[in-house]
Amino acid sequence: MSRAFGLVSMLDELGRISDDPGNLTRTFLSPAMRRANARVGEWMREAGLAVREDAVGNLIGRLESAQPRAKTLLLGSHLDTVRDAGRFDGALGVLLPIVALAELRRRQVVLPFAVEVLGFSEEEGVRFASAYLGSKGYSGQLRAADLDVRDASGVSVREAMEGWSGLTPSCLGKNGPAGRPRAISNQRLGVKPLHPRKGDLLGYVEVHIEQGPVLEAGKRAVGVVSAIAGQTRGRITLRGQAGHAGTTPMGLRRDALAGAAELIRFVESTARLRTPLLATVGTLAVYPGAPNVIPGEAILSLDVRHPRDPARQGALQHLLTEGRAIARRRGLRFTWERTQENGAVACAHDLTALLEESVTAIQGGSSRLVSGAGHDAVVMAKLTPVAMLFVRCRGGLSHHPDEFASPADIAVALRVMLDFLARLAQRRDSAK
Amino acid sequence: MSRAFGLVSMLDELGRISDDPGNLTRTFLSPAMRRANARVGEWMREAGLAVREDAVGNLIGRLESAQPRAKTLLLGSHLDTVRDAGRFDGALGVLLPIVALAELRRRQVVLPFAVEVLGFSEEEGVRFASAYLGSKGYSGQLRAADLDVRDASGVSVREAMEGWSGLTPSCLGKNGPAGRPRAISNQRLGVKPLHPRKGDLLGYVEVHIEQGPVLEAGKRAVGVVSAIAGQTRGRITLRGQAGHAGTTPMGLRRDALAGAAELIRFVESTARLRTPLLATVGTLAVYPGAPNVIPGEAILSLDVRHPRDPARQGALQHLLTEGRAIARRRGLRFTWERTQENGAVACAHDLTALLEESVTAIQGGSSRLVSGAGHDAVVMAKLTPVAMLFVRCRGGLSHHPDEFASPADIAVALRVMLDFLARLAQRRDSAK
Repeated sequence: MSRAFGLVSMLDELGRISDDPGNLTRTFLSPAMRRANARVGEWMREAGLAVREDAVGNLIGRLESAQPRAKTLLLGSHLDTVRDAGRFDGALGVLLPIVALAELRRRQVVLPFAVEVLGFSEEEGVRFASAYLGSKGYSGQLRAADLDVRDASGVSVREAMEGWSGLTPSCLGKNGPAGRPRAISNQRLGVKPLHPRKGDLLGYVEVHIEQGPVLEAGKRAVGVVSAIAGQTRGRITLRGQAGHAGTTPMGLRRDALAGAAELIRFVESTARLRTPLLATVGTLAVYPGAPNVIPGEAILSLDVRHPRDPARQGALQHLLTEGRAIARRRGLRFTWERTQENGAVACAHDLTALLEESVTAIQGGSSRLVSGAGHDAVVMAKLTPVAMLFVRCRGGLSHHPDEFASPADIAVALRVMLDFLARLAQRRDSAK
Repeated sequence: MSRAFGLVSMLDELGRISDDPGNLTRTFLSPAMRRANARVGEWMREAGLAVREDAVGNLIGRLESAQPRAKTLLLGSHLDTVRDAGRFDGALGVLLPIVALAELRRRQVVLPFAVEVLGFSEEEGVRFASAYLGSKGYSGQLRAADLDVRDASGVSVREAMEGWSGLTPSCLGKNGPAGRPRAISNQRLGVKPLHPRKGDLLGYVEVHIEQGPVLEAGKRAVGVVSAIAGQTRGRITLRGQAGHAGTTPMGLRRDALAGAAELIRFVESTARLRTPLLATVGTLAVYPGAPNVIPGEAILSLDVRHPRDPARQGALQHLLTEGRAIARRRGLRFTWERTQENGAVACAHDLTALLEESVTAIQGGSSRLVSGAGHDAVVMAKLTPVAMLFVRCRGGLSHHPDEFASPADIAVALRVMLDFLARLAQRRDSAK
């Protein structure tokens, strides 16, 4: 437990490094991020890692292997936060591997592979309303358009990066011939090539608080992520006929809100029947919106998530078909506008199975769960196989100062990580 | 039909007397209302009526009876409008009796009772957000507080009245000993006492466009109002738990909007089963209101109307009981806040039956319907028995420049009024 207590006090200390003295807010390439990278870099060095930063502000601590041509395991998460954040989201996944490697060093364990601990500079999308800048930069997925985005003060991503490193990212984000992003040239930065080559990597493993209530409900400290759900988001508009609430009989109404209510009930019951489907109506606007006027128009959001893309797409069609039928029965006009679509990301079978062995060994039983939220692992999955370990958080609460993962649960996660590294080392050794 | 065509052209002319050159807007004691009263006063004089205005700006045209101690029948509606109004709402009920009395004069018919045609100066509540100022003033129901209300320019009702008549309403609105409003003293105005005495009155009959789709659906030109519905209005708040739409399984959610949707469906189906109950949710606000956040709070309006008060109150309790049950099942907190309550007004049995005889004779069949909207008759019912005749309006549309009642339907309403006056005269004569 002692290492876990060390980890908890490191999380506390990092949680006080903020751009806002009143709460924890640490955004992409901000002054607080510079102080955070400096402090986390010290911890990395104490753990025996060689520390560098890349042009995107990612903090990278590397532990070389004694073996020639050893592959590299990536461990990490993000060091930026939302506004008025909790101190576990992201930070836990960066600090836990550092503490684990420090413990291996203390035990004089030598791994048959290199390890890079990654503290991504951007995941939350706060400063530029554009998420994953850190992991996209690390993995060569930044595009020119990403660098032109400006923050509320008018500073572009490119300018922020120049101000951070003092160097110009020469051809950052240019796309290659097949429309895929070309590796960002980093020669002028005088550091190692920014992007690892796929063949050199063993995979990416991210530890993260669950940000949901599943582990708490199942009384598990940690769980293994099977997939990161795909997501479709859009807007449904129902148009009927506004009318006087006192003079229009029920049978002659074309009430857009009553139609929306019927659809919301259907969305909920469909998702309840199709576990692990998640379907949410989070916004609803009613027009004209007066107590004595029958609603003539209702506009609602629809967010549909599922770990398997065909299931998500099938469920979406099922909901839209019923929405159109409800509208037809009620004399309403139905329109659907898709605003966002992301495919599901499956976690790598081998890495996840190994992680699950460790979880079962340490915890006495395993839980597999789907991540409904996006994580750096979504982006990293384009570079290398990914696996994720979720840690229970109290009440499922996240993005809030009361966000909390207990020291005991963090200790379990740390022991799982040590066990996982040992199993992976064994496998790599026996595979030679 | 010729008289009806005259009436239609009078409606057109009156509809052009506006405070706003771009549309029809004529509010309480405005310059346009002075011009409207002048023009309608001319038509009244042409019909043989003695014309006066009271201190509240009501235009009153009186036809005396030849018989001594004859009682007075009141006919009328309001001359003010909403903003960007149609030309039938209110105006039809003032001009139609004038044309009817002119027709009786042409036919040299002498009624055994006096008639006052009332053009109330205020019903819509536009200028002072306080409705029925005209009929309240006429019937002695204005209170001191009513006179202190100020419009958007800071002018009080009292000041507006002084500016209108050039005289000070000396003790307007003081309440009598029992808390009931005392008659407004009007001696200094040098006119007849402002308020009629109850015993002198036969009743109040108001012609009005329906402002709803019932007559159109039933293919009737006119219908008789059985009652003006009572109304309860209030606000329901459902509080659950906001959460991440991607990480909270359906079974662990406390979604306030899903609970609201269930309640809205129940409100609608209850009203459909309990005709003529009307129940409407016209507003719904969702918090925090983001597509990827489960709603933690939903606030909705509820408007419940029924011509019988116990039925309205019973339905309201039924809805609130189910609302609380839905909240309990879903782990939500339920609160109800009543913001408005008005009892139902029954139309007078005798007058309404007589009006229905006329409708049946002229139209070949009768329709009884409930008025879900308020009218001057609500206020006048405290002074004298009331009856109302509704005229079909296209699409149920009102409070809109496209508001329309056809010349043919207006002709039917005019014939009904003439027949009704003849029947009432016969009954009064035979009763002697």
